Amino acid sequence: MKAELVSVGTEILMGQILNTNAQYISQKLAELGVDIYVQTTIGDNHDRLAQCIREGLERADIVILTGGLGPTADDLTKETAADVMGMKLEFDEASLHTLKVRFAAMHKDMTPNNLKQAMFPKDCIIMANPNGTAPGCIMERDGKAVALLPGPPKEMVPMFENHLMPYLQKRSGHILYSRVMRIFGKGESQVEYAIRDLMARQSNPTIAPYAKTGEVTLRVTAQCKDAAEGEALVEPVLAQIQEIVGDVVYATHDEELCEVCVKLLKQAQRTVAVAESCTGGMLSSMLVSVPGCSDCFIEGAVTYSNQAKTARLGVAEKTLAGFGAVSEETAREMAEGLRKTSGADYALSTTGIAGPDGGTADKPVGLVYVGLATPEGTKVAKLSLSGARERIRHIACLNALDMLRRALIEQ
Amino acid sequence: MKAELVSVGTEILMGQILNTNAQYISQKLAELGVDIYVQTTIGDNHDRLAQCIREGLERADIVILTGGLGPTADDLTKETAADVMGMKLEFDEASLHTLKVRFAAMHKDMTPNNLKQAMFPKDCIIMANPNGTAPGCIMERDGKAVALLPGPPKEMVPMFENHLMPYLQKRSGHILYSRVMRIFGKGESQVEYAIRDLMARQSNPTIAPYAKTGEVTLRVTAQCKDAAEGEALVEPVLAQIQEIVGDVVYATHDEELCEVCVKLLKQAQRTVAVAESCTGGMLSSMLVSVPGCSDCFIEGAVTYSNQAKTARLGVAEKTLAGFGAVSEETAREMAEGLRKTSGADYALSTTGIAGPDGGTADKPVGLVYVGLATPEGTKVAKLSLSGARERIRHIACLNALDMLRRALIEQ
Repeated sequence: MKAELVSVGTEILMGQILNTNAQYISQKLAELGVDIYVQTTIGDNHDRLAQCIREGLERADIVILTGGLGPTADDLTKETAADVMGMKLEFDEASLHTLKVRFAAMHKDMTPNNLKQAMFPKDCIIMANPNGTAPGCIMERDGKAVALLPGPPKEMVPMFENHLMPYLQKRSGHILYSRVMRIFGKGESQVEYAIRDLMARQSNPTIAPYAKTGEVTLRVTAQCKDAAEGEALVEPVLAQIQEIVGDVVYATHDEELCEVCVKLLKQAQRTVAVAESCTGGMLSSMLVSVPGCSDCFIEGAVTYSNQAKTARLGVAEKTLAGFGAVSEETAREMAEGLRKTSGADYALSTTGIAGPDGGTADKPVGLVYVGLATPEGTKVAKLSLSGARERIRHIACLNALDMLRRALIEQ
Repeated sequence: MKAELVSVGTEILMGQILNTNAQYISQKLAELGVDIYVQTTIGDNHDRLAQCIREGLERADIVILTGGLGPTADDLTKETAADVMGMKLEFDEASLHTLKVRFAAMHKDMTPNNLKQAMFPKDCIIMANPNGTAPGCIMERDGKAVALLPGPPKEMVPMFENHLMPYLQKRSGHILYSRVMRIFGKGESQVEYAIRDLMARQSNPTIAPYAKTGEVTLRVTAQCKDAAEGEALVEPVLAQIQEIVGDVVYATHDEELCEVCVKLLKQAQRTVAVAESCTGGMLSSMLVSVPGCSDCFIEGAVTYSNQAKTARLGVAEKTLAGFGAVSEETAREMAEGLRKTSGADYALSTTGIAGPDGGTADKPVGLVYVGLATPEGTKVAKLSLSGARERIRHIACLNALDMLRRALIEQ
């Protein structure tokens, strides 16, 4: 099967947004074994877009478009695709109802231009959008198809996974089964070097590494007839990788580090509290992003000022004066102080210089101390991180979570 | 002047790399006022690439290509472009010399395939590549041009800035100037509906709306001869929009809501503290993402459990038992309690049900109370938000920041 991809949006042509959708969809099509030879980005312009869809349909079995499904006048992807397919847009009652309920829930007035988001060609396949107001759709004619997805990645990705992916799988006659392994504490090139022989030997399943901020992800993907066959192909490969790479593997089912921590805490019936300086709430926020974290997350203290470190955590003024707020000693007292007053079993702490200013020769930007107080004692790790403020804060949080994960596993 | 962009590389089509070059070049072309209507990504395939260049030259004055300039057999961008332009590749003595010197400096042997990187059509403009082995070039014929840049961003960006940019400026004779206005509290369609007449009347500058999670962004862009002329064209349009749309406009220089809050707090020499339940540190984290926030951000308390709400913020057990943790009363006591103990001038609070579980008929997922305690008194807003857990938390934070912004402006 051949596909073409068309990214619609003047804001992409203007360079205002980075087209991550194209990479995401390309990866998914590659995994599905769908060939793709041409990708186009085009503005919100009826004639140019119509020509582009027409040419795509001549060369490929399906043209996948992202963007231009919104309510405004310059959103015209659906109208244009329907023109090319020779179809008329009509109100879809179910979509109209969903749209009204959505606006009512938001306590917002629906303006007339919103209505067009509920219009579709008769007999097209409508793809629900629980994360936005514009549903997607698939229009089919003479064995060819046009699929429309919304532009915002938060809406596009779930719609692709839940609707377009199964559709493509059905058309192509096989499925892809994959599992994602996640690694913290080794770089992408180190991981790739360690498993290079295994990667070279594999054709089904394949192993695809990619890097996320501060961590490495390996996707192991099998082409197969069903999930049971897929699992039988994938599982031994994951086991081999884990044996080679070791305990830096923190998940084999694509879980975030914070999810793994919450799961381990719940299993051990332990609780955690978090004292943050440079990460400023980000570490708490990661834990709270996990549904059901209330079973194990007691509280967080964002003690950004020295005053708050003393008043809330009992860090000694002497420690702050003698060693500074960014020091092993302060990180230790923060974690121990919060562990005591919160009653949590574990307490994490972070203190560091996230930049861009505030660095010195002794304590440069990127210097971060991460502490963990446990019933067995306290550990502090010293980190030298690089990059922008948000990256330094993010990786500091991952280090803290990984310390907690390792303590829970050892325990 | 019109340009087209062609990104060459099978690894982009396969989703193995993210095409950041396209965004970079698009931004630069937009700034230069060079129109770009079509961007294409194509694999390392002679015939498809030749057709793509030919079509591009029919529609545009210049076709800019990135990638495929390397020494390997599948790098064929230069050969293909020369074919389309009817030109022959010959050895360029200066490039050959540079290449030999470079390999000598790297202590590497030059294999025969490296030699092709020193071959160019006679009379083309060669663009030096101090960051790699493959120079770029510009081929001109009949008033049209093809420009070839290397694929790796580290090589492409300096070559664009030092060679192609001056070439394009000379050819186009104008620039684009834009400013970005940001809005919280009205949806994209509402904003666009309110300014539809203004948008329809505008041709220079133009107004382009786009939505981010929970907010709306308007970019106003003028084609002009320099920044001063651009500002003179853009400023009156921004003022007109602000008059129509009102005080939901929170920034006219593309700042985040948290940046605006930190700026206003610093100006007023006021401080803030944050008590979070459902947002779980995200609100603190937004404030801490702003460099220099330590001047005005005192501390955050992530009081996820009822116990922490009582112990850290002094929320009465009676209030929690009588009204529940998610209630106007609790939000009020959280903000007032933290304002008192932290010594901050302002204290924000959030409490709600972020989902996916935990909702009831009375208190559904998405119900959030946001509180603000000020020297003048306390306000609490009740929100009904929709979407996934992270979206609900994010929009709750934006609402809290906007409450603070409004209080600081009124004050």
